[in-house]
Amino acid sequence: MAGKNPIRFTDTTLRDGHQSSLATRMRTEDMLGLAERLDNAGFWAIEVWGGATFDVTHRFLGEDPWERLRTLKKFIKKTPLMMLLRGQNLVGYRHYPDDVVDAFVKYTADCGMNVFRVFDALNDIRNFEASFKALQDCKKQGLDVHIQAAVCYSLTQRRMGGEVFTKEYYVDFAKRSEAMGADSFCLKDMAGMVSPYDAFELISALKAAVKIPVEFHTHYTSGQGSMSYLKAIEAGVDIIDTALSPFALRTSQPAIEPILVTVEGTERESAIDLATMIGLGQDLEKVAPKYRDFLDTSKMSIIDTGVLLHQIPGGMYSNLVSQLKQADALDRILEVMEDLPRTRKELGYPPLVTPTSQIVGIQAVQNVLFGRYKMITGEVKGMAYGLYGRTPAPMDKEVQKICLKGYERGEEPISCRAADEIEPELEKAREATKGLAKNIGDVLIYAIYPTTGLRYLKWKYGVEPVPEEVKPIELDRIKMQDDVYNRI
Amino acid sequence: MAGKNPIRFTDTTLRDGHQSSLATRMRTEDMLGLAERLDNAGFWAIEVWGGATFDVTHRFLGEDPWERLRTLKKFIKKTPLMMLLRGQNLVGYRHYPDDVVDAFVKYTADCGMNVFRVFDALNDIRNFEASFKALQDCKKQGLDVHIQAAVCYSLTQRRMGGEVFTKEYYVDFAKRSEAMGADSFCLKDMAGMVSPYDAFELISALKAAVKIPVEFHTHYTSGQGSMSYLKAIEAGVDIIDTALSPFALRTSQPAIEPILVTVEGTERESAIDLATMIGLGQDLEKVAPKYRDFLDTSKMSIIDTGVLLHQIPGGMYSNLVSQLKQADALDRILEVMEDLPRTRKELGYPPLVTPTSQIVGIQAVQNVLFGRYKMITGEVKGMAYGLYGRTPAPMDKEVQKICLKGYERGEEPISCRAADEIEPELEKAREATKGLAKNIGDVLIYAIYPTTGLRYLKWKYGVEPVPEEVKPIELDRIKMQDDVYNRI
Ligand SMILES: [Co+2]
Ligand SMILES: [Co+2]
Repeated sequence: MAGKNPIRFTDTTLRDGHQSSLATRMRTEDMLGLAERLDNAGFWAIEVWGGATFDVTHRFLGEDPWERLRTLKKFIKKTPLMMLLRGQNLVGYRHYPDDVVDAFVKYTADCGMNVFRVFDALNDIRNFEASFKALQDCKKQGLDVHIQAAVCYSLTQRRMGGEVFTKEYYVDFAKRSEAMGADSFCLKDMAGMVSPYDAFELISALKAAVKIPVEFHTHYTSGQGSMSYLKAIEAGVDIIDTALSPFALRTSQPAIEPILVTVEGTERESAIDLATMIGLGQDLEKVAPKYRDFLDTSKMSIIDTGVLLHQIPGGMYSNLVSQLKQADALDRILEVMEDLPRTRKELGYPPLVTPTSQIVGIQAVQNVLFGRYKMITGEVKGMAYGLYGRTPAPMDKEVQKICLKGYERGEEPISCRAADEIEPELEKAREATKGLAKNIGDVLIYAIYPTTGLRYLKWKYGVEPVPEEVKPIELDRIKMQDDVYNRI
Repeated sequence: MAGKNPIRFTDTTLRDGHQSSLATRMRTEDMLGLAERLDNAGFWAIEVWGGATFDVTHRFLGEDPWERLRTLKKFIKKTPLMMLLRGQNLVGYRHYPDDVVDAFVKYTADCGMNVFRVFDALNDIRNFEASFKALQDCKKQGLDVHIQAAVCYSLTQRRMGGEVFTKEYYVDFAKRSEAMGADSFCLKDMAGMVSPYDAFELISALKAAVKIPVEFHTHYTSGQGSMSYLKAIEAGVDIIDTALSPFALRTSQPAIEPILVTVEGTERESAIDLATMIGLGQDLEKVAPKYRDFLDTSKMSIIDTGVLLHQIPGGMYSNLVSQLKQADALDRILEVMEDLPRTRKELGYPPLVTPTSQIVGIQAVQNVLFGRYKMITGEVKGMAYGLYGRTPAPMDKEVQKICLKGYERGEEPISCRAADEIEPELEKAREATKGLAKNIGDVLIYAIYPTTGLRYLKWKYGVEPVPEEVKPIELDRIKMQDDVYNRI
């Protein structure tokens, strides 16, 4: 029985759940057995799309991302569907022009998407403008869309505070989001670094500052996730993001089941039925073995304690290691780890999230291997120029000058909205896919991922055969592997 | 820097950590690389012995359990060593006579054990008497021992309360423990069922009721473990039990690392160094692959949500399933799950812990398969007679009468301390091991485990060869397995 102020849940099993724990490999066919029961469970929203799913479906699974969305919409009719939208990056890794953003957002809404969670890797709120505008257009057309602004939680020290990412920084961002027309606000802790008492303090402040609902999204990565949710619930957070236990914990969201029992008997008690969640989890276990090879089993520990010490997301750390290995310089990892905070500071403290974590990481490696800013990547030059937007803190003036020396677009950084610098691309994409694309969805696959998108369209329309490795694995094959392993 | 009232930690990595996650298989040789650094870390205690380790060392590892203790004591000199003692069951699965208890406790203290955590499966405090008395003798002899009384946390419904296991039940037990001379008190939640707000309420009550330090031991099993620790810390608990992250979570203890960061900046901040813990975890990861085959990977989920629903520990549930499978009656599992609470109530609500969980489970299966109490196990008859002690609630009078009808020891249940019914056994054990046993430790191995104990003594003294399967696995072999698997 729900309490006076029940905590609401967004279920992430079908998006962030398998993206975080199984490299986004879950196929639509394996989602359908759960979809209707998820719809009836009483979630605030069900996250099913966006993030890496658009990339992985068409690249590795031979699935049409739009078809996945339309199919799920047939089964999930009552509960709002949610997607993660990387602001001007949409579901890709670079800034797209406004015409592509506009077409993408509107077609996604047409296919049945409801809650658009929009974030920007630099927390430059101007990078929300194009998608917010498109969403407001959708509303005017009577589409049932909900605009959620998300801020990336970032740290420059072990706990919240320091020079840049203060409580006031997030509160200010929330207020500006509300003023821009956001229907709700999300504290997005993609690396699982929010500490429980910081969650309490920050959620309390956010609740006091804005009228729109506040949602909290964290990952279990550092092992603090469920404790942070508990303190956020005590601070009055409206919605939290959880996954069914088989796809929860590790680097994914905290699991819903223990939280349901925890809040029983309090005013935050949820009406969601524990037995229903457990039944869904049992069914999820039945298909899970198909994806087990994507589970990271390299370590016994299921949490990443390193992230507590140096605030470097686990994925970023492994990237540094593999870069250094390629350069045959793994022995310099400690130097890189020391350089990294310095490079990050010089580059204006970008949050460490896709793609900024890669950009900062690669530059730190080059700073160590070749001397500081002797080699500068194109991405760092672009960031110095302003192509990704405004960094949370100003860049170091000297470093910025070095980065922009002889830069093709100009030596003076821009101060306008980044996308104002990008030419429209939609017409070119229509041209390039003429005779192959049958609708704007096809065109957008190409517009966002030209190489793998075009290859996918050829598979889709039978121009090229679908390769074996893209086809689903059968449970029989898993059983056979087990039998062989047990005989070794 | 420690706060005003720092939370203290017992590290369980070398006992409950691997007992819970790796079937107790960690070998002494792999502990030694960590031992000195653990000793310097600032733990309240380090749990290294007791529980299942005595059984597994001599049975599966070909290791002398006493030798393990003496070896660890050489490396861990400053921090108190802790063991788990099953009251009159010592480190076995049945009640031993007082002479064996006395000799066991005293020899263990001689070998360097400090903190004896004593519990009883029925929470019959009279089953503490013999071991407490032996420990008090040790104190008189100047040995550095600490008596910790532990109560088994048990539930008859989803959350604390109901007819039997109320807050008052635990508080009363703590007061009686203190009066009996316990130096500290432990709330022992072996199935990981304490819910965070119940932890807050119960720990608050315990802290108000007794003067001795209160320790809280839980398991991550249900996914509530770290949240429960957080609320217990807020309620003023003195000590919590954690493991290094590689051997933490799953069915083991919560991990220490995220808790250290969580309490930073509060008055419960610990002086234990995070970087030291992470370094120890990294070294533990290096030996962990040797034991990976003991990790339960049958499910994707790393928590057991079923325990939230029906309060049946995961291990007990799998036992029920395998019993029913053997009887070719797996289709009756739901009936058994329904019968179980009824049978448990009739048997006086024993906590579901070794060995009572097995006793209750087997009887419930027989009740379903053959009719209620048509077949009665010897253990249930013994429990009805009082051989395990007093049950938390009285047994159902009718059921007790049926159980004792024609019982060999008598049809009237006893009301005295259970061990008063058991004849001394130590002299017989000395006789049986004559010519083989070289000290009281050897005799005790036989006294507690006659069959496997005698076999072990023969290995130890070269009377029989040590079989291959008892020898340690090398890391090279793990690498070879990986290579083969990757080629399948
Ligand atoms: Co996420
Ligand atoms: Co335990």
